[in-house]
Amino acid sequence: MRATEIIEKKRDGGELTTEEIRWFVEGYTRDSIPDYQAAAWLMAIFLRGMSPRETLDLTLAMADSGDRLDLSPVIPYAVDKHSTGGVGDKVSLVVLPLVAAAGVPVAKMSGRGLGFSGGTIDKLESIAGYRVELSDEEFMQQVRDHGIVLCGQTKSLAPADGKLYALRDVTGTVPSLPLIASSIMSKKLAAGANAIVLDVKVGSGAFMKHVEEARELARIMVEIGSGAGREMVALLSDMNQPLGCAVGNALEVREAIETLRGGGPADLRRHCLVIGAHMVRLGRQETGSGALDEAIAELADLIDNGGGFEKFRELVNAQGGDVSMVDDPQRLPRARLVEDIPAGADGFVAAVDALTVAKATLELGAGRARKSDPIDPAVGVVVRCKVGDQVRAGDPLFTIHANDGAKLAQARALLEQAVQFSEGEPQPLPAFYDTLYSEN
Amino acid sequence: MRATEIIEKKRDGGELTTEEIRWFVEGYTRDSIPDYQAAAWLMAIFLRGMSPRETLDLTLAMADSGDRLDLSPVIPYAVDKHSTGGVGDKVSLVVLPLVAAAGVPVAKMSGRGLGFSGGTIDKLESIAGYRVELSDEEFMQQVRDHGIVLCGQTKSLAPADGKLYALRDVTGTVPSLPLIASSIMSKKLAAGANAIVLDVKVGSGAFMKHVEEARELARIMVEIGSGAGREMVALLSDMNQPLGCAVGNALEVREAIETLRGGGPADLRRHCLVIGAHMVRLGRQETGSGALDEAIAELADLIDNGGGFEKFRELVNAQGGDVSMVDDPQRLPRARLVEDIPAGADGFVAAVDALTVAKATLELGAGRARKSDPIDPAVGVVVRCKVGDQVRAGDPLFTIHANDGAKLAQARALLEQAVQFSEGEPQPLPAFYDTLYSEN
Repeated sequence: MRATEIIEKKRDGGELTTEEIRWFVEGYTRDSIPDYQAAAWLMAIFLRGMSPRETLDLTLAMADSGDRLDLSPVIPYAVDKHSTGGVGDKVSLVVLPLVAAAGVPVAKMSGRGLGFSGGTIDKLESIAGYRVELSDEEFMQQVRDHGIVLCGQTKSLAPADGKLYALRDVTGTVPSLPLIASSIMSKKLAAGANAIVLDVKVGSGAFMKHVEEARELARIMVEIGSGAGREMVALLSDMNQPLGCAVGNALEVREAIETLRGGGPADLRRHCLVIGAHMVRLGRQETGSGALDEAIAELADLIDNGGGFEKFRELVNAQGGDVSMVDDPQRLPRARLVEDIPAGADGFVAAVDALTVAKATLELGAGRARKSDPIDPAVGVVVRCKVGDQVRAGDPLFTIHANDGAKLAQARALLEQAVQFSEGEPQPLPAFYDTLYSEN
Repeated sequence: MRATEIIEKKRDGGELTTEEIRWFVEGYTRDSIPDYQAAAWLMAIFLRGMSPRETLDLTLAMADSGDRLDLSPVIPYAVDKHSTGGVGDKVSLVVLPLVAAAGVPVAKMSGRGLGFSGGTIDKLESIAGYRVELSDEEFMQQVRDHGIVLCGQTKSLAPADGKLYALRDVTGTVPSLPLIASSIMSKKLAAGANAIVLDVKVGSGAFMKHVEEARELARIMVEIGSGAGREMVALLSDMNQPLGCAVGNALEVREAIETLRGGGPADLRRHCLVIGAHMVRLGRQETGSGALDEAIAELADLIDNGGGFEKFRELVNAQGGDVSMVDDPQRLPRARLVEDIPAGADGFVAAVDALTVAKATLELGAGRARKSDPIDPAVGVVVRCKVGDQVRAGDPLFTIHANDGAKLAQARALLEQAVQFSEGEPQPLPAFYDTLYSEN
C-alpha cells in the first residue's frame, strides 16, 4: 500500500477499506508515514467525511495502536463514562464514588483539560498528594481492593489518537464529527469498558453549539460502541449555562464534596444522579423502564447515608491524597482575592453565558491555553445565579476568586457581560435534551 | 496572522485575501510554516478550489519567493514558451533556434523530466559538454551575444513553487487546476518573459486527458498571465499519439536536428512552425490575422535556408556542447540493441497510445520515476506509424533502442499492445484543438 494512494482515494470521495485505514494509522503511529501525509489525509477526511464502517475502523485502529487494558481479571463487567467537556463539569468527582458505593466498580482514566477549564485530573490535583499517574499494576490492584480508581491516561493508551489529535489541533481538522467521535471512542475502547455512558454537552460553553450536531455526534459514538460490542447510553445535556456553580479546580472539588454530603447546587445533584443511574443500570446489565428511577433513588440514598462521600474519601486515600482536605474543604487551595459582582438592577436571569464564564476563569489562570501552561488550582468563578432566578439590584451574580488584581479586573470585565436579564420570568433551561441507547 | 486560521478559512470555502496567501507562501518558503500545515492547506485548496483572484495571488506570491529575472537590459521584449509535457515533445529544440534566427531573442529556462520521458534539459545533455547550469551573468551575456539561451532553472527561481510541488507530489494534491496553473506560471513570470506561448497537451500521453479540462487549465493560465500584464497565447495540442517519431533523449535530439535540416516527421515540423509563429508574432508585438501565416512562412524559409540549424549550432557551441555531434548526429549516444516490432497483419492504424509508448521508454531507462534516478541518453523508441497510416503485415510499427535485453523484452511487451488497427481508414488526429489568447 502507498500513503498517497490512500490519501487520493479519500480525496476523491472513496470509501477506504479496513486494511487501508489500519495500515495508515499503524504507519503514522510508528512514524513511517510523516505528519504532512497524515495532515493531507485528515483534511480529506474532514471535507469528504467517513462512512459508519470507516469511522468504526478508524476507532478500532487507534484503540489497537497501543496497549488495550483488560479489566476482566478484576472486574467481570466494567462501566465507564465520558463527558465531551463543559464549564463547571465536576460530574465524575461525584458520580464515580456514588456508583462504586452502589457496588458497581468503576475504573476511569481521564484527560487533562485543554481549553477553557481544567480536566478531572487537574481538579483532583488540587488535593495535596493525589497521585494521578498510576502503573498498570497499581491501577488493577486499586480496582480490586477499592472498586474505584480515577487517574490520568497512560501514554500507551491509544497513542495514535494522541498523535493524530495533536496534528488535528494545528491543521484545522478538529471539528469533524467522525474524527471527534473516533478520538473519544478509541480511548474508551482501549480502556477496557464493557459499557459506556456518554455525556454530550451542547450549548455556548460546549464544543457542540446546537442540539442537532450534538445528537449526530452522540449517534456516531453510540454506533461505534455498538459496532465494537459495547452497551452504550448517550445523554445530550445543556451547557448554555455552567453546570452547578463552581468553575475552577479547587472550587469544583469543594462543590463536589458538598454534593456528596447532600448539599450543592440542585442542577448538579440531579445531573449526577441521572448519569450515575445509567451507569448502575448498565453495570448491573439491567433493562426495563423502571430500572432507571430505582437506581436514581438508590444513589440519592447513598448521598443521604454518606456512602458516596465515604467512597470518595477512600479513593483519595488510596491514591495518596490528603484526606483532611476532603474532610475540611476549607483546607483546599484558596485564592487571596475574593470579590462579588452584584446585579445592577432588579430582574429575571434570562441567560448566564457559559462560554464567557469559561473565558473569565481562563483569564484567572484556572485553565490552560497550551499544554505546557501551569494551572492555578485556587482561582475561579462561583456562579451565584441560574437562568430563571429572580434577582434584586445588589444581589451577587458571581464571586471571583483570584490571586492577581489585574487578572481579577479582566475576569470582572468579562463577567459583567455574561448575564442577560428579562422583565418577565424566562423558561428555565432543560437539564437534558435527549437520550440515545445502543440497539444491542 | 495564524496558519490554522488561514487553513480553516479555505477549508470552509472562504476566499483568502492577497495578504493571507502571500503570508502563507512566504512563511512556508522560509520554514516558519511546517510541511504538515502546508499539506492541510493544499488539500483544502484542492477540494475547495481557488477564485481567479486567489490563483493569481498564489502565482505572484510564488514568483516573488525568490529572484525575479530582469531581462530588460539585454532584451527589450522577451518571449517564452512552455509545454505541459508530452511524449516525444522535442519542440523547444526546434522552435527556439528558428525563432531566434528570425530575430526574436529567446531566453528559456527549462525543467528536467519527471515521469515518463526526459525534459528538454535531459535531452540536451545527450550532447557531450552541453552546460545546462549557467550563472545569471552567463545567461544574460549569452542572450546579448547570441539571442538564444536554453538552460536549466536556477534554484533561486520561484523556490516556493519547488517546495510546494515536492509536497504536493507526496500528499495527493497534484491534479488541481489552480495549483498546476500557478506552479507553471510562477516560474514563467519569475523568468522575466513579457509574452508566453503555452503548449497545453491533451490526450492519453498528457497530464490532461480531456479537451475540456485542458481548455480550463489553459484558460486559467492565460488569465493569470493577463492579470500579471503578460501577452498570452495557449494552444491545445494532441497527445493521444506521440509527437513526431522519436521518444528518448538522444533520439529526440537527432529528430530535432533532422527537422531543422528540412526533414523529420511532418506532424513535428508543422507543430514547431505554428508554435514558433505565435512566438514570433508576440515577440514583434504584431497583431492582425495575416501575421501568423506570414510568420509560419518565414520560419519555414529559415528551415530551408539553414538559418535555424545554424542557430542551433550556435546555441550548442555557446553552451559548451560538442558541435560535431550536431553536424553528425550518428555521433550522439547510441544504444547497443536495436529491434523492430513488425505489424502482425494488414490494416489501418487507428491508435498509437502515447501513454504506452511512454511507459515502454521509461522501462528502457530514458526517463526517471524519481528525481534521483539516472537517465540513459541512448535508449528509447522510434514510432514508425501514425494514426491513419495503412500498414502491411511485417511493416515496422516501432524500433526499440535498448542497452539491456531484459528491458528490451519489457518494452516490446508493452509496445505490442500500443497500436490499434481498424479495417477502414480512420479519421486522422487533429494537431491542435483550440487556441486561446489573452484579451489585453
